[in-house]
Amino acid sequence: MSLLARPTRRYDYITHGSAIYDESFATIRREARFDHLPADAERVAVRMVHGTGQTDLTDDLVIHPRLVSAAREALEAGAPIVTDAHMVASGVTRARLPRDNEVLCALRDRRTPDLAVLMATTRSAAALSLLEDRLQGSVVAIGNAPTALFHLLEMLLDGAPRPAAIVGVPVGFIGAAESKQALEEVARQGLDIPYLTVRGRRGGSAMAASALNALAQERE
Amino acid sequence: MSLLARPTRRYDYITHGSAIYDESFATIRREARFDHLPADAERVAVRMVHGTGQTDLTDDLVIHPRLVSAAREALEAGAPIVTDAHMVASGVTRARLPRDNEVLCALRDRRTPDLAVLMATTRSAAALSLLEDRLQGSVVAIGNAPTALFHLLEMLLDGAPRPAAIVGVPVGFIGAAESKQALEEVARQGLDIPYLTVRGRRGGSAMAASALNALAQERE
Repeated sequence: MSLLARPTRRYDYITHGSAIYDESFATIRREARFDHLPADAERVAVRMVHGTGQTDLTDDLVIHPRLVSAAREALEAGAPIVTDAHMVASGVTRARLPRDNEVLCALRDRRTPDLAVLMATTRSAAALSLLEDRLQGSVVAIGNAPTALFHLLEMLLDGAPRPAAIVGVPVGFIGAAESKQALEEVARQGLDIPYLTVRGRRGGSAMAASALNALAQERE
Repeated sequence: MSLLARPTRRYDYITHGSAIYDESFATIRREARFDHLPADAERVAVRMVHGTGQTDLTDDLVIHPRLVSAAREALEAGAPIVTDAHMVASGVTRARLPRDNEVLCALRDRRTPDLAVLMATTRSAAALSLLEDRLQGSVVAIGNAPTALFHLLEMLLDGAPRPAAIVGVPVGFIGAAESKQALEEVARQGLDIPYLTVRGRRGGSAMAASALNALAQERE
């Protein structure tokens, strides 16, 4: 069989990428609830629902009133994205980034394992400290490790440079809900950095990447 | 502030990676239902739940009786993983692979855009045709595009080389549930290739990577 042979079409399915997006987004807008979110955040919520296949995701979604404008302005000014997981970085559609922005993850930095031992924390958390000098004005996206989000908040409360916006959606059963609650409290009580989070256990690298891809530009 | 300063610990959270895994897996085993799955697939289900934060994921999970043994034997024999998305490839923990197995994705192959136009399908689907000569005995993981799963089934029904196992968990609102239903029907009716799928809209690259990481070795 030639590599270039198209297989016999046996199923009836949409094959045009932009038509799939359009119909998906229309379905989501029919089924999901957005009235509790800032108006300019609807497209972010739609894309996050799209990436998870779950319209009830928006029930747990919390988006700060200035999150979209702060993140978009930062990216348009060339700010880097700082993340805790290579999967998040891999999920960022580079063509959507307005300034070919850097997407930084220090998890595989050769210094990270030793630093994690020294700091008595996870590699995901320690890796963020290696990027401390890149935090100022950045968009930080935590999509995997609750410990990384706790660590980020502790760095900021200690006076680390301030990101322009935080997408905090670690996933899981141990510390995830608690770390996201801490993000909401810290942002409300003191630091006032625009943020996005998903309450509870849901989250993950795909969700973080979906949010970043929506924040990167207005166009759906 | 020195890069090596550990921030002031302000929250009470577990910082030891293996302890986090142990407690997470114990929570999942307390809360999720596994009795409808093959006994040797429980660890796969646990890791997929872990990656999504959702214990009810197992309600939609379908795992063929020979999926775990077929995928593990293939990987232990050095078979490649073939996938539709770079995020899936990025999520595979290389240290868990028994033979430093290749993880293949042709989405960014320079031939893919033209081939998609020629085949009148998505790039995700066309990219699989570029890997047709690597399918024999492989573990295929579709974590993103329903069109890629439909395309794979059409290739196989046309006589393409047979993978050892298929992890079919595309996500979304247009074609995802239908493509996974087609996988179940094709596998049952004719091709009988061991498979894993999640019924409905849920799925995604993180879920596919979780399944692969569990299939790669017995150790949790």
